[in-house]
Amino acid sequence: MKIGVLGTGGVGETIGSKLVSVGHEVRMGSRTPDSEKAKNWAASAGPRASYGTFADAASFAEVLFNCTAGAASLAALEMAGRQNLAGKVLIDLSNPLDFSRGMPPTLTVCNDDSVGEQIQRAYPDLRVVKALNTVTAPVMVNPGLVPGDHVLFVAGNDRGAKARVSEWLVAWFGWTPGRLLDLGDITGARGMEMYLPLWIRMMQQSVGHPFFNIQVLKGAPPRRS
Amino acid sequence: MKIGVLGTGGVGETIGSKLVSVGHEVRMGSRTPDSEKAKNWAASAGPRASYGTFADAASFAEVLFNCTAGAASLAALEMAGRQNLAGKVLIDLSNPLDFSRGMPPTLTVCNDDSVGEQIQRAYPDLRVVKALNTVTAPVMVNPGLVPGDHVLFVAGNDRGAKARVSEWLVAWFGWTPGRLLDLGDITGARGMEMYLPLWIRMMQQSVGHPFFNIQVLKGAPPRRS
Repeated sequence: MKIGVLGTGGVGETIGSKLVSVGHEVRMGSRTPDSEKAKNWAASAGPRASYGTFADAASFAEVLFNCTAGAASLAALEMAGRQNLAGKVLIDLSNPLDFSRGMPPTLTVCNDDSVGEQIQRAYPDLRVVKALNTVTAPVMVNPGLVPGDHVLFVAGNDRGAKARVSEWLVAWFGWTPGRLLDLGDITGARGMEMYLPLWIRMMQQSVGHPFFNIQVLKGAPPRRS
Repeated sequence: MKIGVLGTGGVGETIGSKLVSVGHEVRMGSRTPDSEKAKNWAASAGPRASYGTFADAASFAEVLFNCTAGAASLAALEMAGRQNLAGKVLIDLSNPLDFSRGMPPTLTVCNDDSVGEQIQRAYPDLRVVKALNTVTAPVMVNPGLVPGDHVLFVAGNDRGAKARVSEWLVAWFGWTPGRLLDLGDITGARGMEMYLPLWIRMMQQSVGHPFFNIQVLKGAPPRRS
């Protein structure tokens, strides 16, 4: 499949390399046509990897991964071009983290909105599926780095797109269907993004590194006597 | 021990009844001296249970549980009276949920602040420990309702208070020390409260009832080749 990866940071590199390794043609997009980071990534990822502008990646791709920072995502998609996005599935991995005011970081959007919703509103015919933003990049593409049945969330308005993305998470990245928790429509992105302050705090204060994830354990409602 | 429970909702009732059942004297406080809910609770909870105003509960208590709604907590503490709070440990269970605009709910404070921090700022000599707000009330006092090693978070500025609260969570409610994750100072309350939108979404869209909790699974950082 032809896949566009928007963003040249650690998340984009990790996602892009994994997608290449499982057989896809991947184009990494950035603001400029000659990003050193994208160029270096493509050189290391092999012949199925290429790079270009956000528009180059979006026009090339059948499916898009938004790996830009949450605060920059709308600008990146505007550069990608509306006509290059129409009807496509976009997997939104972004988190609107703002570290500019120190620790703990704040979110540039939260509470009554989210990056996932912002993107879906701005591009109504883009099929946005929020996923993968709740784990560190190496775990996204290799869930076995964390032992046990830890979970990923998916949220989006288009049930067909969510079903396809769920299949891809299993086939390409090694997740298992029972570990994908469907949080409903794209407003579910709110909870997924607002989880980040807890995730960061756990990483810093409790776990000590980012290679962790949560499992959801279920009881039964107690019987009334 | 003499314990004050601020708030007459389901959380206050559940916490209060459990504390009575393990041998404590518990006074439930509310805005008025003659709350029907507090009166009914005290009648059902037995001779070690009493009720009164927030000030009655706070002056009676050695330790306080804030079981009021997050948006009402500061007002409740003002009614409790600064002189009745000084130097005491307050376990803050509140969540600033606002359902007035429909679902999904929003938070009345979040991102760069939290109820836990608001309380600590307003009462510098109160020893605020945020805990228990991330599970439904019956699970707070009976973690066995959810099988497995699911976790609770604690956050607060006063290490001694956190240590005591952690011991109480084990001795009174049945948590185990390894399942209590210390998130550092009271700014950790931010992540704990901002987790609620994800919790509510999981309850509604994925689990179907509130008797669940999360476990934190840890891997090891991958070795660099």
